[in-house]
Amino acid sequence: MKIAIDAMGGDFAPQAVIEGTLLASEELPSDVKLILIGKEQVIQELLHTPTLASNNIEIIHAEEVVEMGEHPTKALTQKTKSSIAIGYGMLKAGQVNAFCSAGNTGAMHVGAMFSIKAIEGVMRPCLSSHVPKEDGSYGVILDIGANAECKPDVLEQFAVIGSIYAKHILGIKNPRVGLMNIGEEEQKGTQILQSTHQLLKANSKINFIGNIEGRDVYSDKADVIVCDGYTGNVILKMAESVYDVMHKRGLEDEFFAKFNYEAIGGSPILGVNGNVVIGHGVSSPLAIKNMILLAKKMAESNIYLNIKQALSS
Amino acid sequence: MKIAIDAMGGDFAPQAVIEGTLLASEELPSDVKLILIGKEQVIQELLHTPTLASNNIEIIHAEEVVEMGEHPTKALTQKTKSSIAIGYGMLKAGQVNAFCSAGNTGAMHVGAMFSIKAIEGVMRPCLSSHVPKEDGSYGVILDIGANAECKPDVLEQFAVIGSIYAKHILGIKNPRVGLMNIGEEEQKGTQILQSTHQLLKANSKINFIGNIEGRDVYSDKADVIVCDGYTGNVILKMAESVYDVMHKRGLEDEFFAKFNYEAIGGSPILGVNGNVVIGHGVSSPLAIKNMILLAKKMAESNIYLNIKQALSS
Repeated sequence: MKIAIDAMGGDFAPQAVIEGTLLASEELPSDVKLILIGKEQVIQELLHTPTLASNNIEIIHAEEVVEMGEHPTKALTQKTKSSIAIGYGMLKAGQVNAFCSAGNTGAMHVGAMFSIKAIEGVMRPCLSSHVPKEDGSYGVILDIGANAECKPDVLEQFAVIGSIYAKHILGIKNPRVGLMNIGEEEQKGTQILQSTHQLLKANSKINFIGNIEGRDVYSDKADVIVCDGYTGNVILKMAESVYDVMHKRGLEDEFFAKFNYEAIGGSPILGVNGNVVIGHGVSSPLAIKNMILLAKKMAESNIYLNIKQALSS
Repeated sequence: MKIAIDAMGGDFAPQAVIEGTLLASEELPSDVKLILIGKEQVIQELLHTPTLASNNIEIIHAEEVVEMGEHPTKALTQKTKSSIAIGYGMLKAGQVNAFCSAGNTGAMHVGAMFSIKAIEGVMRPCLSSHVPKEDGSYGVILDIGANAECKPDVLEQFAVIGSIYAKHILGIKNPRVGLMNIGEEEQKGTQILQSTHQLLKANSKINFIGNIEGRDVYSDKADVIVCDGYTGNVILKMAESVYDVMHKRGLEDEFFAKFNYEAIGGSPILGVNGNVVIGHGVSSPLAIKNMILLAKKMAESNIYLNIKQALSS
């Protein structure tokens, strides 16, 4: 198995990415090769310090870098030799089983849409995130920012995609789908949410348990939380910040610590023809390590193929 | 000053309401009269237990009760002798300076719209809530559930109303307004949010600091958080549940404890011709006490008149 990593992506790249890659390589079996894509000489130098060495890391040179603030589409069109463009090229060609980056989120999303492309039948690929639960298990929330507004049929598809993800990656047999809303009753919320409720209720492919509310982010009521990208983004950033504020105030707790972005590692793009994870811009080596381990998990079950099959059946 | 309290409103009414009213009466000066509206005999019996007695509490009899699950409009049309209907009647007639209830939220909102009515020029009255900040001060978030979807001009008006509230109730001189969004850049978010951003930027009545994000609920970046009722509801319920989960896990902290609904007390309805607070359905005596203290604060500065004046100028 080969996992490509954008060595130049993230606020603390390439240093943090290389350190994180080495941390991951220590935990992964020797048949998992990690491919660092970026400026070869820079990576070589960082890798060759005595403390940083591993056998299962390869380097692929990329002359260019998509910077964090760049316009996604423009950057990708112009910088065909960037680490993001090359990573997607390798993923598309089947040279790697997964690609991950803590770089420009927009460019990663656009890159997925233009290179490996959306799975046939997928209306809007989305970004997802694991949601820790008190019993130690995880759920998944989608979308968390790729599509600020979503129509009912798009939200319905998120429910189907999220259920497949929860089954194959989180090991949940019959994942419970909840629609994020402002009350339990069917007629609650916006027109879009009311229509979505009806679509989800009628969909036999999923286990819809009804509307859930803000308080259920922390409960174990639903395994798959469905919402538009605006709402999911607000929820996720709020949950991450709860950990930050607690940490700052000297409150330590293993449950809330799981909401630390470093522990979650990254956000899978779901609904595209390949296994892709986007990491947090501020990723530390620990966050990078967990992003790579998540990419490995996705590659292992080849989650994108499961989604593809489910949508064509 | 007279404050009317719906003695029959809330899951634990009338017991919890009466206990809470007595707690409030102990803290309030003797010129603040608390008017309990509800079934006189029931209230009398509860008040006349030896431990429960106060001089500044009056009872106004209400034969009927709007139950928690009832359809708001239907209930209010049919139950003209309910505690909610009578409370609004007294508020409209100027017999009391504020009215508060932990009962049927929908009925309280509809009651406001049909009795005291929206202030001229207010497109959509909204529900608001205080948001505790780490430095000990408070901000305000609006809407938190009255209007699931909002157009840009409605959100703009929330910003104006919230600023007046922050000035007069929270004592903030030049309140900073933040638009809840998924990134700092102007072009982030839905079409509605993008348009709202432009309206807020151009509005000279407010101190717009730009977009804020989910993580800023806990930061002190903005004093007035503007969002639609769906988003505000998700945020508030999530924040309340953080306290609940922490409490359950034995984590005690004075900052997060302020997010306990009991401490916040209630949600003012803003943009109507009167001072109205809606309490949480599950209100305990402590929550009722704080709901009454909030109503008193609103009555003191007659906040609804400040909003009315600001909108007509």
